[in-house]
Amino acid sequence: MIYMVGIGPGKREYMTLQAIEAIENCDVIVGYKTYISLIEDLIKDKEIIKNEMRQEIDRCRIAIDLSKKGKNVAVISGGDSGIYGMAGLVYELNTKEIEKQEIKVIQGVTSSISAAAVLGAPIMHDMCQISLSDLMTPWNVIEKRLKLASEADFVICIYNPRSKGRSDHLKKAFEIMAEFKGAETPVGIVKNSGRMNQEEYIVEFQKMNFELCDMSTMIIIGNKESYIDGNKIITPRGYSI
Amino acid sequence: MIYMVGIGPGKREYMTLQAIEAIENCDVIVGYKTYISLIEDLIKDKEIIKNEMRQEIDRCRIAIDLSKKGKNVAVISGGDSGIYGMAGLVYELNTKEIEKQEIKVIQGVTSSISAAAVLGAPIMHDMCQISLSDLMTPWNVIEKRLKLASEADFVICIYNPRSKGRSDHLKKAFEIMAEFKGAETPVGIVKNSGRMNQEEYIVEFQKMNFELCDMSTMIIIGNKESYIDGNKIITPRGYSI
Repeated sequence: MIYMVGIGPGKREYMTLQAIEAIENCDVIVGYKTYISLIEDLIKDKEIIKNEMRQEIDRCRIAIDLSKKGKNVAVISGGDSGIYGMAGLVYELNTKEIEKQEIKVIQGVTSSISAAAVLGAPIMHDMCQISLSDLMTPWNVIEKRLKLASEADFVICIYNPRSKGRSDHLKKAFEIMAEFKGAETPVGIVKNSGRMNQEEYIVEFQKMNFELCDMSTMIIIGNKESYIDGNKIITPRGYSI
Repeated sequence: MIYMVGIGPGKREYMTLQAIEAIENCDVIVGYKTYISLIEDLIKDKEIIKNEMRQEIDRCRIAIDLSKKGKNVAVISGGDSGIYGMAGLVYELNTKEIEKQEIKVIQGVTSSISAAAVLGAPIMHDMCQISLSDLMTPWNVIEKRLKLASEADFVICIYNPRSKGRSDHLKKAFEIMAEFKGAETPVGIVKNSGRMNQEEYIVEFQKMNFELCDMSTMIIIGNKESYIDGNKIITPRGYSI
């Protein structure tokens, strides 16, 4: 049996009871070393298999092999396992197995929700989530989504905004969105949301600071009704008050 | 102090530790009666103010007034308070107060995440969330978002798909999406996700059954790469396997 466990943004308090229970009930814990380090106190008596970034396929194959041997395995994702996490890959690999393994997705709080809570209430209306990583998605697809999402006036949550290898992507993304997102649209930037070293910033779209952002940053761009009030972003739901 | 608490989809196991702690630490619990009934065992010793649907503004004003009197108040939302929940409204009302109240958003698992976990891994790539309720959003805005989101090939999560007063909206939404969503695109339907009476269905886009859906249903429509494997929907992230 394989449990795909989303541990939420990082601090214990944001985990679901189901995630804690699933980890407690497993024999083996498999995950990227950064996420493993966030739950070390929970897994002291467990077999732990941790590896590096970009070793996702190996990690999921190991989990399937262990499950075949009768082990209960927890594969750890940050946030929610079903949102840019490991759930899909395990299901994909399992389709190719003759001896299918049982898989259960354990729900967690994803980064957009965590960052939104820090920023006030920026995602109170229709929203979309876009990853700027073009490791596995052609950049022209990402550009098209940025353009159409802006035209649709969605609140836009940007995952994986900026790595060392692609420091210009975020600036390009803002140039595309600028066709429809006004200069004063609120933008929330949350680094390490829900972790010990969390930092948050609120700026206007035209004053976006790209240098603040890295791969551990969530960026939330408001819609036409969003506004800044003190140190919070509010996107009205539409109530007449 | 006002805690905007998202209790997740319903069952206790999907709540975050922070949500349970916030409720325990509050003097008064304010919420829509259906959500209050889901946490009754947690709030036995609390003052409880519950009211009907469409009384959201009253509910949030009551919370602000109680906070002014020095009470710790928890305002309960289903799912996450920041996603079509009560967080925005309390912040909006608080901007008009002379004596501003402190507000804290307590993160929860929203319905799209909960339904995705039931369906397998349908939201592994860029996605958007659209509410079909036109009580507070003009229908032409909703139509525009459905069209552009489909054109962008987002995985689309539909909130509030169908009420008695607007039984045709969902059918109209599917007609709009049909311009870009292929006939065989997987569609997941989860009623009462994460509650005792959960039901789930997976169909092809062309075989959508609108009668299955009500206001407690989450609908997830895949992207061009999504496929059905057994009783699960998988949206590939893009790994070469």
